[in-house]
Amino acid sequence: MEVTNNYIVIKSHINGSPKESDFETKSEILALSVDLGSNEIIVKNLYVSIDPYQINRMKSKSSSQKASSFAVAVVVGQVIDAYGVGKVLASANPEFEKGDLVVGLITWGEYSVLKGDYMLRKLDPLGFPLSYQVGILGFSGLTAYAGFFEVCKPKKGEKVFVSAASGSVGNLVGQYAKLFGCHVVGCAGSKEKVAFLKEKLGFDDAFNYKEETDLKATLTKYFPDGIDIYFDNVGAEMLEAAVANMKISGRVAVCGVMAEYTDAGKRAAPDMLDVVYKRITIRGFLAADHYNVYEDFISTTVDHLQTGSIQAIEDISTGVDSIPKAFIGLFHGDNIGKKIVKIADE
Amino acid sequence: MEVTNNYIVIKSHINGSPKESDFETKSEILALSVDLGSNEIIVKNLYVSIDPYQINRMKSKSSSQKASSFAVAVVVGQVIDAYGVGKVLASANPEFEKGDLVVGLITWGEYSVLKGDYMLRKLDPLGFPLSYQVGILGFSGLTAYAGFFEVCKPKKGEKVFVSAASGSVGNLVGQYAKLFGCHVVGCAGSKEKVAFLKEKLGFDDAFNYKEETDLKATLTKYFPDGIDIYFDNVGAEMLEAAVANMKISGRVAVCGVMAEYTDAGKRAAPDMLDVVYKRITIRGFLAADHYNVYEDFISTTVDHLQTGSIQAIEDISTGVDSIPKAFIGLFHGDNIGKKIVKIADE
Repeated sequence: MEVTNNYIVIKSHINGSPKESDFETKSEILALSVDLGSNEIIVKNLYVSIDPYQINRMKSKSSSQKASSFAVAVVVGQVIDAYGVGKVLASANPEFEKGDLVVGLITWGEYSVLKGDYMLRKLDPLGFPLSYQVGILGFSGLTAYAGFFEVCKPKKGEKVFVSAASGSVGNLVGQYAKLFGCHVVGCAGSKEKVAFLKEKLGFDDAFNYKEETDLKATLTKYFPDGIDIYFDNVGAEMLEAAVANMKISGRVAVCGVMAEYTDAGKRAAPDMLDVVYKRITIRGFLAADHYNVYEDFISTTVDHLQTGSIQAIEDISTGVDSIPKAFIGLFHGDNIGKKIVKIADE
Repeated sequence: MEVTNNYIVIKSHINGSPKESDFETKSEILALSVDLGSNEIIVKNLYVSIDPYQINRMKSKSSSQKASSFAVAVVVGQVIDAYGVGKVLASANPEFEKGDLVVGLITWGEYSVLKGDYMLRKLDPLGFPLSYQVGILGFSGLTAYAGFFEVCKPKKGEKVFVSAASGSVGNLVGQYAKLFGCHVVGCAGSKEKVAFLKEKLGFDDAFNYKEETDLKATLTKYFPDGIDIYFDNVGAEMLEAAVANMKISGRVAVCGVMAEYTDAGKRAAPDMLDVVYKRITIRGFLAADHYNVYEDFISTTVDHLQTGSIQAIEDISTGVDSIPKAFIGLFHGDNIGKKIVKIADE
């Protein structure tokens, strides 16, 4: 049996903000069969994750040397791998059978042909929608959980600031921090998002950074006694302003640098006198280093989901062709919560 | 009995680099007697420590708000407290007797009149010169020891970079790191210092940063496989260049920000993409938070001194009037090792 596989590629390397003309949809005829003796798997993609960090893989080599030395660069005109959920259609790997639901690195396409070393595991949805496996029970969830609990090492009652707080990771950090007993203030880029954080997610407070002219003074207003923990998703001026407002022994977890991904010239220059005198720790992290908490993360999050004390915030588009727009929208703040593209029904 | 006490004061707040005209010597007649019932102590100062961080206490309030909220500001025209060694001349505190050698916060003067809460303890020189108590066995030593072992958490064989490596703290970090089994490269500001680091202190390599135009490329040359630990005494461009050259899970201990103390506009803007992708930790610290390792520090350092495997590098001027020049010289790289002023013989 054969199918047509539509998949997304970049037409050239992307430096600066991505735009629709940077992408195109390619088609191929795909035979749904695998060579016995290979460990090939063909997966029908159901949900794929849309993440800002992918932009770092799409830059030209010179401008992304650092990023690409840690993450495999996206090749112009070739399939782009991404986290997602799918269903096995054919498998030469005895660990997977036709019909298995799987989660891991699939592709920004309708089907994934996985060969060699791939990162995939069988999936038990635990009664939750499959999309949860891409967001709250997937890498975004692990990033928020490990980043908050392992990197920030919170204590009950501490004051927590989260930037990009309505984003895929930020909204979960805020929810975990509230459930843990912290005081949480978030920032986001619209009135609607600010209202959402306060009214729907129970943040103690939130503000629209686009309405503020002096971020340092703004943070002093929201944290008159200082910030214990800053969960940084954006870098740049917000990081500087947060460092200026940190308390003694404050911790900054650097999860992402959204404000700098599409503007290589933009940098954060936190005052190192603050860092010394206030004994601040600034620590970058990747969720993949924290699989040691994976089981805790899943059991805690599933418990909270079952009691309704945590919410899966999703922003789902439909169809492979919607991927470029969904991705570009991340850089314009279009999404609230986890951006996901639903490729197909199960 | 009365003595004349000469002591150093600032004539006005200092913003930017200090110069001799910022200081003056004042004199007072001092009766060597204390009120019974007070806990007053009068100390004859023997050696005082000359440290760059004092500049942060001398700035005008507006420009040093942060620093002065953690360290007591120096008051124009008044005695300046500083770490040092002295001998008790009179004491109303039963814990101290006339003739006791003491170490702690004394003054940039010939005599210290200590009242209220003071930070002082009796001293056993352990057979070493008294000046060692100001440097290698004092706060500089504790800063190097705690910063390297507690903040950097080294492993044998790791690659260590130290800036201001011929300075009071840097030279000890390098020596501890070598004794621990690390590969150590230092930077300093003259050919003479570079030779000293390599030939006298056993650094694996060293370079003169003033001869380099591209610090990032320079560090790549000295650390082709990357830096595990950067002990930062300077901030600014060197911190940026080091972060660009860090290995995965690299650690930066920020001990001081020499390059920024006298230039408030100067900042380090390390690339946060490096910080995230390489999971770098940048941590500011103060030795005073690490008294938990004080006994280890003393016993280890005394052992090394007794076997001759560590060297006390001192740069000693004589006389209270030499304090301003000694202090100003710190910002011009005049000293090799710990800058100390000997005030008087025992």
